[in-house]
Amino acid sequence: MASGNQRMKKKMENPPRSMLRHVLVVSLALNVSFILRIMLYQTQQTHHKSPFSISSSSSTAARRRSLVNSTRSDRPPDKERLINLDHGDPRMYERYWRKRGEKTSITIAGWESMSYFSQGENICWFMEPELAEEVVRLHNLVGNAVTQGRHIVVGTGSSQLFLAALYALSPTHHSHQPITIVSALPYYSSYPSMTDYQKSGLYKWGGDAETYDDEKDGPYIELVTSPNNPDGYTRESVVKNKRQGLFIHDLAYYWPQYTPISYPSDHDLTLFTLSKATGHSGTRIGWALVKDSVVAKKMTKFIELNTIGVSKDSQLRAAKILEAVSDSCEEEESFFKYSYEIMAHRWRKLRAAVEGNALFTLPNFSPAFCNFFNHYTQPQPAFLWLKCEGLIEDCASFLRQHKILSRSGERFGVSPKYVRISMLDTDENFMEFIERLSSIHL
Amino acid sequence: MASGNQRMKKKMENPPRSMLRHVLVVSLALNVSFILRIMLYQTQQTHHKSPFSISSSSSTAARRRSLVNSTRSDRPPDKERLINLDHGDPRMYERYWRKRGEKTSITIAGWESMSYFSQGENICWFMEPELAEEVVRLHNLVGNAVTQGRHIVVGTGSSQLFLAALYALSPTHHSHQPITIVSALPYYSSYPSMTDYQKSGLYKWGGDAETYDDEKDGPYIELVTSPNNPDGYTRESVVKNKRQGLFIHDLAYYWPQYTPISYPSDHDLTLFTLSKATGHSGTRIGWALVKDSVVAKKMTKFIELNTIGVSKDSQLRAAKILEAVSDSCEEEESFFKYSYEIMAHRWRKLRAAVEGNALFTLPNFSPAFCNFFNHYTQPQPAFLWLKCEGLIEDCASFLRQHKILSRSGERFGVSPKYVRISMLDTDENFMEFIERLSSIHL
Repeated sequence: MASGNQRMKKKMENPPRSMLRHVLVVSLALNVSFILRIMLYQTQQTHHKSPFSISSSSSTAARRRSLVNSTRSDRPPDKERLINLDHGDPRMYERYWRKRGEKTSITIAGWESMSYFSQGENICWFMEPELAEEVVRLHNLVGNAVTQGRHIVVGTGSSQLFLAALYALSPTHHSHQPITIVSALPYYSSYPSMTDYQKSGLYKWGGDAETYDDEKDGPYIELVTSPNNPDGYTRESVVKNKRQGLFIHDLAYYWPQYTPISYPSDHDLTLFTLSKATGHSGTRIGWALVKDSVVAKKMTKFIELNTIGVSKDSQLRAAKILEAVSDSCEEEESFFKYSYEIMAHRWRKLRAAVEGNALFTLPNFSPAFCNFFNHYTQPQPAFLWLKCEGLIEDCASFLRQHKILSRSGERFGVSPKYVRISMLDTDENFMEFIERLSSIHL
Repeated sequence: MASGNQRMKKKMENPPRSMLRHVLVVSLALNVSFILRIMLYQTQQTHHKSPFSISSSSSTAARRRSLVNSTRSDRPPDKERLINLDHGDPRMYERYWRKRGEKTSITIAGWESMSYFSQGENICWFMEPELAEEVVRLHNLVGNAVTQGRHIVVGTGSSQLFLAALYALSPTHHSHQPITIVSALPYYSSYPSMTDYQKSGLYKWGGDAETYDDEKDGPYIELVTSPNNPDGYTRESVVKNKRQGLFIHDLAYYWPQYTPISYPSDHDLTLFTLSKATGHSGTRIGWALVKDSVVAKKMTKFIELNTIGVSKDSQLRAAKILEAVSDSCEEEESFFKYSYEIMAHRWRKLRAAVEGNALFTLPNFSPAFCNFFNHYTQPQPAFLWLKCEGLIEDCASFLRQHKILSRSGERFGVSPKYVRISMLDTDENFMEFIERLSSIHL
């Protein structure tokens, strides 16, 4: 964990401050820290740890078929309202899809898509051909993944595909010990629990990939999330001596609105998900690009045993949405351009709010050439990876005092001085968050 | 296994035959058995064991959005065509839903149902309120399940709920051994692999419930499938000394078209699925009725870690379909009446085809009063549990000679003299099956 924190520190921007100002901040922080500790203690009992627990107030707002535009708040902003930016519900995208109107609607008749099967001749027998076509079309258009020579496996979100991949890559011989699953710090908060909740004899969570050495520790599967959730940095595998390594590349955020598309990814097993690409997280659709047909078959078998395939209606809807995204790339306001501009605006607002505030530091990114936009772009991650400076040891609890729900760095295997905050909520919630962040001073 | 076979025999109808005829049949069977062995050996290599592997010819027919009515064959029936009745794809229902027309269509706009969340205040935070309402309405109307005082948990089909239930009911304390999962013979062929494929340290497959005794064997979870898949009989738990028993009741087939509805089921944890109730197996939706809120919470947690909820589009479609079924109950041709009549017709055809043929025996059922139809009805299961008599030891291979794909009794934990055959395929496939069955004589 220490090495992870050091790496984090190196990556974080350290804004220039005079010594005098620094000492003043530390002194003031000391004063408030005692008051805070008492306050935090009182509220900790009500702080849910589930990644998907939400307050009943925000749940009302999240209701489907509400006529309220998601980017308009359900009630006037007030200081007492809890802003839940713990999870990554991508509500920001709703406005775009409203603007597209009925063209992206899908109608399914009662007699359609009734069979378990879609295409028996495909390894992934429950995958709708339309979806496979649109996946290939979009990747080729965006240039973020090689699709030639790949088997596509559709999943009930990329979570199911992650589990299917663990199952497919684990050695199955009876004499084998469970294979170790590792990921570099800070890693996606759900990886440990997703790996271990069934107490599988096939695989087990092993923590930080950077301290893993396959020469002494044996075979492993490394999870490489790039851009990384939570911190947004581009990643490659980090395990020393990779001879026995197998890799799952989670590229949920490798889309032009979040990061420059520098090259088409070309790994053995790569995961993508509709929720982060287009914002349709209620439609549980992800897809894997898999080189080895044996692995693709085992992943398909997992999904057969787990859920007997993937809902056809969701696949057809996903195909329609991906088609609309590809079509829009030929238009003036492409989906990615629109999303890129919102993200750019939000990151500018965020940096302006935090600038000059010694309490917080943000990650700092370098621009790179994006082949999709054909110019240099800035990484602008879907999550803010915020560090509380000075004596604030528990950043999530500190923010909760200001009615901002975030996810503690501890959940990602690092220090509670860090929090992850969703950048994809509604305009109103995001602006209210910026306002509150700006007003926090010691 | 022996006890299971004996029970099976007792239940099977043994048609009266003269001794002479019996001896003749045995003698003739002996002659063909040698020829068959050679033929079977040649074909066994191509016989897939996966419950969902299908031939490419039938996969084409199963394609969605085909304009061909599912009850019309894609090509003229010929003796060389393989009829796949191994799996239980309920294609029989398509005709009904076509007749209902556009009233059962669902349209979802691109901006709808985008959030992960449905109703944060519910234990099952990803469940659409419309679906929960329609589930309750239909159960109350049919009278097949008590819904009062129950938590509803929606799943990606009842397979996911089955795994969620194993997870929720298993003891989680570190010192605990995996709990044993048992079910009476013959049990649903996927139970063993679904229980063991992840090599969970929480639960493990234990086989036949009838030979299990919790006084000497310890705590267990019993799976009670009623009407049973494969044999269609009504079931109750069978383990002796039930003090440490936990129960999962799989009532996928407890609907009026399959069996008399004698009482509203009132168990701790009951599973239902859309695919068998209405025929929408491509829409992966099941639901659990759960008494204990702690169990409902753990099942929800499982689904959160497994697939981060259940697709909203599928839930909304399922709600629409269930609504149409409930609405139809007030009309002349209710869904259940229509389905009941098709099943009755098919079972009559089947019994007529097998009558007088000493090669095959069928299960025999007693009628009972159905509270839904308000008269006595016959059980008419979704699967035929067929026994090959005489010297035919491998009934599935024998039928395969006649281009009929069935599932061997071995997959259900009993003798290969038994096979399970789907009764829910298209009219054409079913009629072709009956024709072939009628023509098989020794």
